[in-house]
Amino acid sequence: MTTISRIDKLQSYMENHQLDAMLITSPKHVYYLTGFASDPHERLLALVLPRGEEAQLLVPALDYEAAKAASSVTGIQTHGDTDNAYEILGRLLPTSANRIGVEKDDLSVSRFEAIAAAFNAENFADIGRPLREMRAIKTPEEAERMRQAVRIVEDVLRAGVAQVKPGVTEIELVAELEYRMKKLGAQGPSFDTLVLTGPKTAMPHGHPDHRKVAEGELILFDLGVFADGYASDITRTFAVGDISEDLKRIYQSVLDGNLKAIEAIRPGIAFGSLDRAARDTIAAAGYGPYFNHRLGHGLGMDIHEYPSIHGNNEDIVLAGMTFTVEPGIYVPGIGGVRIEDDVLVTADGVEVLTTYPKELTIIG
Amino acid sequence: MTTISRIDKLQSYMENHQLDAMLITSPKHVYYLTGFASDPHERLLALVLPRGEEAQLLVPALDYEAAKAASSVTGIQTHGDTDNAYEILGRLLPTSANRIGVEKDDLSVSRFEAIAAAFNAENFADIGRPLREMRAIKTPEEAERMRQAVRIVEDVLRAGVAQVKPGVTEIELVAELEYRMKKLGAQGPSFDTLVLTGPKTAMPHGHPDHRKVAEGELILFDLGVFADGYASDITRTFAVGDISEDLKRIYQSVLDGNLKAIEAIRPGIAFGSLDRAARDTIAAAGYGPYFNHRLGHGLGMDIHEYPSIHGNNEDIVLAGMTFTVEPGIYVPGIGGVRIEDDVLVTADGVEVLTTYPKELTIIG
Repeated sequence: MTTISRIDKLQSYMENHQLDAMLITSPKHVYYLTGFASDPHERLLALVLPRGEEAQLLVPALDYEAAKAASSVTGIQTHGDTDNAYEILGRLLPTSANRIGVEKDDLSVSRFEAIAAAFNAENFADIGRPLREMRAIKTPEEAERMRQAVRIVEDVLRAGVAQVKPGVTEIELVAELEYRMKKLGAQGPSFDTLVLTGPKTAMPHGHPDHRKVAEGELILFDLGVFADGYASDITRTFAVGDISEDLKRIYQSVLDGNLKAIEAIRPGIAFGSLDRAARDTIAAAGYGPYFNHRLGHGLGMDIHEYPSIHGNNEDIVLAGMTFTVEPGIYVPGIGGVRIEDDVLVTADGVEVLTTYPKELTIIG
Repeated sequence: MTTISRIDKLQSYMENHQLDAMLITSPKHVYYLTGFASDPHERLLALVLPRGEEAQLLVPALDYEAAKAASSVTGIQTHGDTDNAYEILGRLLPTSANRIGVEKDDLSVSRFEAIAAAFNAENFADIGRPLREMRAIKTPEEAERMRQAVRIVEDVLRAGVAQVKPGVTEIELVAELEYRMKKLGAQGPSFDTLVLTGPKTAMPHGHPDHRKVAEGELILFDLGVFADGYASDITRTFAVGDISEDLKRIYQSVLDGNLKAIEAIRPGIAFGSLDRAARDTIAAAGYGPYFNHRLGHGLGMDIHEYPSIHGNNEDIVLAGMTFTVEPGIYVPGIGGVRIEDDVLVTADGVEVLTTYPKELTIIG
């Protein structure tokens, strides 16, 4: 699907939902719909789609050359740092536009108020859903970019694991991993790389610091890259030398939960049942209360995107969707294990994009 | 100023502005006010400040241990991924709270609508300003963290410059720089590191790629780090071997603009006059149209924060403020130069935090 046919889809959505126009302000969606990737920070970037008319792109003046080079939308307007960008934006829509679609999830209240003041419109509808649903189903070309992001992150992980030995610190490993990401052609990490050791593995969102790897402990790696606009996200937990029977049991329970959830994936099933497949397995092993987060999240141009895979989500799994499967058990003071894969739903089942071995492995 | 005294300031603000409560939802501000740093992604994190009562912190369940360890606010509530977080939030405020302060710049329209639905309140005021103004004036301890972030990034830049030779690519240099950041103890880059070469230096927001450094060209480095929660941001442009007279003239004009602006900094002057000091200098050299962005931006816990330093900003410079001074000239097809310093306004003038030499230097 080209950027042009994505805009055509939004034109149909406007027809079907009585919208006079759409305003796209999130840089990711501007990229998705025009091919122009940028990071405008607090400056206004907006793709204006009046129903039945040509799209126009409003960019900060200093991005004009880059936008012209990359955007499939050829009508490009600019605003300088001393202009009132919203006034310029207001002129890009017919004054008759009364019902305008905006991205309520990605638009700040302040910016929304400025946009509302710039238009005569009475009515602002959320257009998060058509964008989210379009993005959730990956084209074969998008799936291939995700495979590439997975290939890179697995090479990075392999290189990082090879550096583990007693005495090396969490932060040194993070530096090594992120260095390899760039070297291997990634745009960068898709989120802050996590390396946690020993009891810190029981903090799902703990921060790497100068703690040193020691014998008899767990070490948890959670990392991903952006490559060509798409994210990967993988977690593996390893034993450094011999570990306690407790930790081994925790590891095996997480692995069982991960495998059960993956086994259940196919088009037509509810997301909630995937979460329950893992959760029931872990609860049966006695660790129910220690799996204190959802099973996973959608993955694509964002590291966390639609769908959210938790027990109460009865939305239906569709072919072409990509998401993470990442059960974990975190026992305070003892340690934690998480095993995370990235999956692509196929016509009749699932392709597990991540291929890194999952059996408990002793390293260091 | 401790986190506790910052909350006291907000309590006074509530008194003075007839607010019944404040809801702080940006992770940075939760960190600023409690000492608890986290990245909750789409999960709800909220600091609830009812007027005249104890603050309470609502965190995702999986962050409970980390919050308990770091937060100076000891009332900590949690929500799990299957809870309705807004319902729980609604219970943390007295039902009599009618006028509630929220961060309109940092709050999405969707989240705002969910918050509004969870409360009986009729009235939501923006509290961006007291937070912004408190943050703009750095305490000596914050200034010291910024000096440290500058020291690290200058060591990183020195190491990167030493790697420049004809044939090395922009991306290889970026990987090298970001690797050094972590090694030297930074949390990471404060924005996507820029290394641009040759004609690409004329694109202020161009992307590093596999382009190779060549003799007779400019190379532009724009990089920063976060260290201990605070950002640095520096740009230096170098000549690789001998460069044209045109490029030398451009370089000297940018440097003159940079020095003129810095000379003008002192408490009591308007931001706009700093921008004009640089802009007039560059215009007098004949490059006015090629300096197509503002002079600089506030710097602190965010890489871009209040104030925005452009010609129309007549706000007054105050002691304790920290911001960037970064004039540039970008001539399409020829090349661009930017020279960026970080400054701290002192009682009677300015301390330039960045110390890296600015005279035109030939490297490689």
